[in-house]
Amino acid sequence: MPRVVDRDERLGEIAAAVGRVLERGGVEQVTMRNVASELGCTTGLLTHWVTDRAALLHVALRATADAQTARAMAALVRDPHDLAGAVEAFLPLDEVRRAEQKVWLGFWALAISDATLRAEQRDRYRDFRVHLVGHLRALGSTPSSARDAADLLMTTADGIAVSATFDPDHWTPSRQRRQVRTVIDAALG
Amino acid sequence: MPRVVDRDERLGEIAAAVGRVLERGGVEQVTMRNVASELGCTTGLLTHWVTDRAALLHVALRATADAQTARAMAALVRDPHDLAGAVEAFLPLDEVRRAEQKVWLGFWALAISDATLRAEQRDRYRDFRVHLVGHLRALGSTPSSARDAADLLMTTADGIAVSATFDPDHWTPSRQRRQVRTVIDAALG
Repeated sequence: MPRVVDRDERLGEIAAAVGRVLERGGVEQVTMRNVASELGCTTGLLTHWVTDRAALLHVALRATADAQTARAMAALVRDPHDLAGAVEAFLPLDEVRRAEQKVWLGFWALAISDATLRAEQRDRYRDFRVHLVGHLRALGSTPSSARDAADLLMTTADGIAVSATFDPDHWTPSRQRRQVRTVIDAALG
Repeated sequence: MPRVVDRDERLGEIAAAVGRVLERGGVEQVTMRNVASELGCTTGLLTHWVTDRAALLHVALRATADAQTARAMAALVRDPHDLAGAVEAFLPLDEVRRAEQKVWLGFWALAISDATLRAEQRDRYRDFRVHLVGHLRALGSTPSSARDAADLLMTTADGIAVSATFDPDHWTPSRQRRQVRTVIDAALG
């Protein structure tokens, strides 16, 4: 009797393979053929799970963003005041996390012209924002201050992530962390 | 006697064509064939000027970034204290500037795996930073404060640019401008 393939497990393997291909060759190399080859399966079998390059990036982005979000939530569960820890979950502080940022960069480039990816990006950021505003409110911020602080923290994370991906010599982990703390102090007083 | 084709003029036309193709179809559609078709020339003729997709994005990025930088410099020449005006030169405040940001997004995705594009990105940001630090020093900032402020302003611009490209309903021009002012106040007191 054939083993029932677990959908999440299979998509996780595909996401990891997309990440490796992207890391080696950039978004151009993320093709159905190359990802199938990375997985050691046929393109036909891969097509059973995802239909095209955009879907490959979509699967990889979901896995990456979910992992980052889980790290951020874990930081806030350990210490609800550790906003810096939560923001750092999204920063390219080491090679592994620089690879995560490359998934975002590849995804954004395809999201320019793909309505499904664009909606995922927009809705995911809106979810981030709603959760962050709720958390800041629970810590005592006013609604208006919480909204502004959430915007500021999210754009700071993206801005550092882009810069640090391409210039890790300037954007050392300590510089990244220092700027996050500066922005948190500025946003929340 | 054949007209001597001005190199800068031709590269400007190519950059504009890449921008239009990118805007319509995303980075996937930026191919030698599609850009040649957009220009109404043969792929062979286009190859005389640029050799591949990475070079097309490189030419487009240079044109976009140079135009943005020129706008930022003009704002500071008009009023050396108008840092907000300089930062706004890089924000997607309208459709034209959202198209500029898409060039950056396409460029970043290819720069992941292209050493030439990666060096352009890194060196351009280093140049931005040197100029901005020099300007802030001239306005009276200490070296350390000027360096931190320059990092903060640059990451804020990138962070807003990414978010606003994908969610212009949330990131209205007034919200973008307000956040820039908040960060300038925080960075420079």
